[in-house]
Amino acid sequence: MQGKTETVTYVKSGCHGNGRYQVRILVLGGDGYLGWPTALHLSRSGYDVGVADNFARRGYDLEMGVGSLVPISSLHRRVECWEDVSGRRIDMFIGDLTEETFVYDLVGSFRPDAIVHFAEQRSAPYSMVDRKHAVYTQVNNVVGTLNLLYAIAEVDPSIHLVKLGTMGEYGTPNIDIEEGYIEITHRGRTDVLPFPKQPGSIYHLSKVHDSHNIAFACRAWGLRSTDLNQGVVYGQSTPETTLHPDLATRFDYDAVFGTVLNRFVIEAAADEPLLVYGKGGQTRGFLDIRDTLACVELAVRHPAKAGEFRVFNQFTESFSVMELAQRVSIAAGGATIVHIDDPRVEAEEHYYRAAHTKLLDLGLMPYLLGEELLSDLLSMARSHLDRLERSALEPKIQWRSTASSITRRQWTRPEHSPAERPL
Amino acid sequence: MQGKTETVTYVKSGCHGNGRYQVRILVLGGDGYLGWPTALHLSRSGYDVGVADNFARRGYDLEMGVGSLVPISSLHRRVECWEDVSGRRIDMFIGDLTEETFVYDLVGSFRPDAIVHFAEQRSAPYSMVDRKHAVYTQVNNVVGTLNLLYAIAEVDPSIHLVKLGTMGEYGTPNIDIEEGYIEITHRGRTDVLPFPKQPGSIYHLSKVHDSHNIAFACRAWGLRSTDLNQGVVYGQSTPETTLHPDLATRFDYDAVFGTVLNRFVIEAAADEPLLVYGKGGQTRGFLDIRDTLACVELAVRHPAKAGEFRVFNQFTESFSVMELAQRVSIAAGGATIVHIDDPRVEAEEHYYRAAHTKLLDLGLMPYLLGEELLSDLLSMARSHLDRLERSALEPKIQWRSTASSITRRQWTRPEHSPAERPL
Repeated sequence: MQGKTETVTYVKSGCHGNGRYQVRILVLGGDGYLGWPTALHLSRSGYDVGVADNFARRGYDLEMGVGSLVPISSLHRRVECWEDVSGRRIDMFIGDLTEETFVYDLVGSFRPDAIVHFAEQRSAPYSMVDRKHAVYTQVNNVVGTLNLLYAIAEVDPSIHLVKLGTMGEYGTPNIDIEEGYIEITHRGRTDVLPFPKQPGSIYHLSKVHDSHNIAFACRAWGLRSTDLNQGVVYGQSTPETTLHPDLATRFDYDAVFGTVLNRFVIEAAADEPLLVYGKGGQTRGFLDIRDTLACVELAVRHPAKAGEFRVFNQFTESFSVMELAQRVSIAAGGATIVHIDDPRVEAEEHYYRAAHTKLLDLGLMPYLLGEELLSDLLSMARSHLDRLERSALEPKIQWRSTASSITRRQWTRPEHSPAERPL
Repeated sequence: MQGKTETVTYVKSGCHGNGRYQVRILVLGGDGYLGWPTALHLSRSGYDVGVADNFARRGYDLEMGVGSLVPISSLHRRVECWEDVSGRRIDMFIGDLTEETFVYDLVGSFRPDAIVHFAEQRSAPYSMVDRKHAVYTQVNNVVGTLNLLYAIAEVDPSIHLVKLGTMGEYGTPNIDIEEGYIEITHRGRTDVLPFPKQPGSIYHLSKVHDSHNIAFACRAWGLRSTDLNQGVVYGQSTPETTLHPDLATRFDYDAVFGTVLNRFVIEAAADEPLLVYGKGGQTRGFLDIRDTLACVELAVRHPAKAGEFRVFNQFTESFSVMELAQRVSIAAGGATIVHIDDPRVEAEEHYYRAAHTKLLDLGLMPYLLGEELLSDLLSMARSHLDRLERSALEPKIQWRSTASSITRRQWTRPEHSPAERPL
C-alpha cells in the first residue's frame, strides 16, 4: 500500500484576525496518537503547521516490547506522504522540550500564532511503574511546559498556548465538576477559585502541576492559554488518517497505554475477555478522536485573551466502565466480561457529573458513541490481530506497589526469579 | 568566642508510644535557617536526631555574593560544638535528595520515626530570577520530595513525614482560608475538598506541587504526613542557638532570602529606609522562630494516622507589611518608611483571614510579636553591621520579567552593558 496517493482539497483559512493570510500552528508531540491526526486536520483546514517530537512514545514501545496494533510509518514518511496526498507541507522539528535551546529555537524560528501542546508522557500506569518512571513523568511534563512558558514569554507573549490537560485532574468529588473554576461561598463571603484537584496518579499529578504553572504564567506575564481538560479518547480513524496507510495513527491495546474503550474493542476482536477493573462503576468523560481535532481547532480559532487562563472540559459523554464493556460486548456479538482486582487506587463506584458546555458553545457538534463506530473499530482491530501481543493486555502495574515491571519478558517467562528482573 | 562551652541539661523524652526509648528524627535541610535550630531543639528535647544537607543554601550566598548578617559556623563545627555543649550527638549526612541512592541510604540507615523536611529551595524571588532558576527550584523541590516519598514507602511506610509547606500556597482568596481542606456545597451536594491553591511564584508553585504529590502518596501507599503551611518566620535566636556562637543560625537581610520583618529590622539598624513593596497592604501570617520549633515538635509528638495527609496552618498572628514597617520604625526610634514599586505580581490590598487553630489545639503557646523581641533583634543586627552589603537590600528580581540578575557585581557596577551580564 506504500506509495498509494489520493489527492484531497483543503480549505484555505483566510485571515484569522491577525492580519496574516495563514495562521501558523505548532503541534508539540505531533508524532503521537492525537498529535499526528491533529496536525493533519489543522493542515487540511488551511493552517501552516509545524510538528515537533522527540519520539519518546515510540521509545516506550521499545521499552515494553509492544507496538501499535495498526502499523504506523516514521514521522519523516508521514510528512512526505501528506505532502504527496494534500500538496501541503508540514514542518518537522526533532527535539526535546526539556532542552531549553531546542524550545527557544523552535518557538523563535517557527513563530507560531498558537502552540498545541500534546508533548507529555500521557499514561497513568506508566507513571506508576516505579520511582524512576514517576520522576521521569513529572520532570518531563513539568519542565517541558515550564521551558515552553518561558520561551513564549520571551519570544512572543501573544502566542496562544493550547495545552492538553485531563479530566482526571479533578478526580471524583462528590459535587458537580465545573470547567476549571468554581464559585465558593464560605462564611458569608464569595469568590471564584480554581476547582480543587484530586488527581489519581503521578501522571495526573503532573497535569495538575502544569495547570498551576500555566495559570501563574498567564497572571505574571500576561500569557494567554486554554487548558483542554480532555476525557478518555476512543477511535483511530480521522478523515485525514484514512487517506493513505502511511497517514494512520497509533492504536494502543496494551494495559499501559491503551485507553479503556480501545482496549475493550481489541480484547473483543481477539476473543479475549474484556477486563473490567473492580466493580466497573468508575465513570469518566469520553470523546471520539474526531472531536479532539474539532475541539483543538475551536480553541485555536477562538483564542484566550491576554492574561487569561481558560479551562475547557473536553469530552462529550460520560460512561461507566461497565456500560462501555457491555456496549462493546454487544457490538462484538457477546464478548465475555471479567472483573479483576482493580490495580488502581480509585473509587469503584461514585457520583460523577461534569460540566462540558464551553466547547459546545463555540460550536462543537459531537460524534456520539454509536454502533457504527464500534463496528468499524472491531473490523479494524480484527484486520491487525496478527500484531497483537496478548500478554500485554494484562495490567501489571499496581498502584499500591512502588515497583512494578512493564517489560514483556518478565510476563512471558514467569520462571524468572524476581531478583533477575530485566531492565 | 570559639571553644567557649556551657553545659545544658536535656529532657529525656521517654517512650513515645512505639516501644523504643528514643524516638529518631531526621531533619532534612538541617544546616539551614530553621533546620539547624529545629535539630538542636529536638536533640535537647531528647530525640535522637540526624541532619542531612547538601549546602545548597550556602551555595546561593556564593552565587549572590552576600552572606548571613550573623556569622555561622560549618555544619561539622556546629555538630561538634553541640556535642561539647550538650553531650548529645547529632548524626550528619551530606548529600542531595534529588539523588535517589542518597535518599534510600539515608532513610534505610538512620531508620527514623519521623522526617522533618526543610530541604527545599525556599525563596520566591530566587525562583523568579530566570528560567534556569525556575526549573532548578521546581525540579529540586519536587524530585527531592518524590524520592523521599518512594524511600519512605519502600523502607518503612510508618515513618511520619513532617513537611514544610507555606501559607503562600493559598494566595489571597476573597474568602476565609481553612487548614488544607474546605467543605463546599454546590448545586445541592456537599464534599470536603482540598482548599483551592493560588500560589504567587514559581517557588510557591513548587510547594503546591509537593502538597498534591504527598496527598496522593498517603492515599495510594498509606503513608502518614503533616504539611505545615508555615507563615513568614521572624527572629534569629532560640534557647539552643544562643548557648554558643558556633550554634548561631543564619540571619538574612538580602532582598532574595531575607523575609520581610527580618529585613526591616536590619534596614532600621543600618539607618536605611524600610522598603515597602507597593501600598504595603499585603497581609500574611507570621510567627516567631521559636514557635517554628515548637510546632514541629508538636507535629512529631502527635503523628498523622496511616494514610492521612494532614495540613496545619503554622502561624500565630497576621500583619500587613505596613503594620510591620510601622512597628519596626517605632522600635528603632523613627526609621524612615519608603514605598517602592512592587516587584511582585500580587494584590497590594486584599481580604485576609486564615484559620490556625490546629496547632493551638495541640498545645502551642505562641510567642507574639512584642517590643522586646524587636529591640533584641535590632541590637543583634547593629552588632553585625560591619557584615552588611547594602546593595543587597534593593529588590532586583522583577516578577513581570523572565530574566533578572541576582549577582552583586551587576548592581555595584551599573556601567556594565546588559549584554555583559555575568553569571
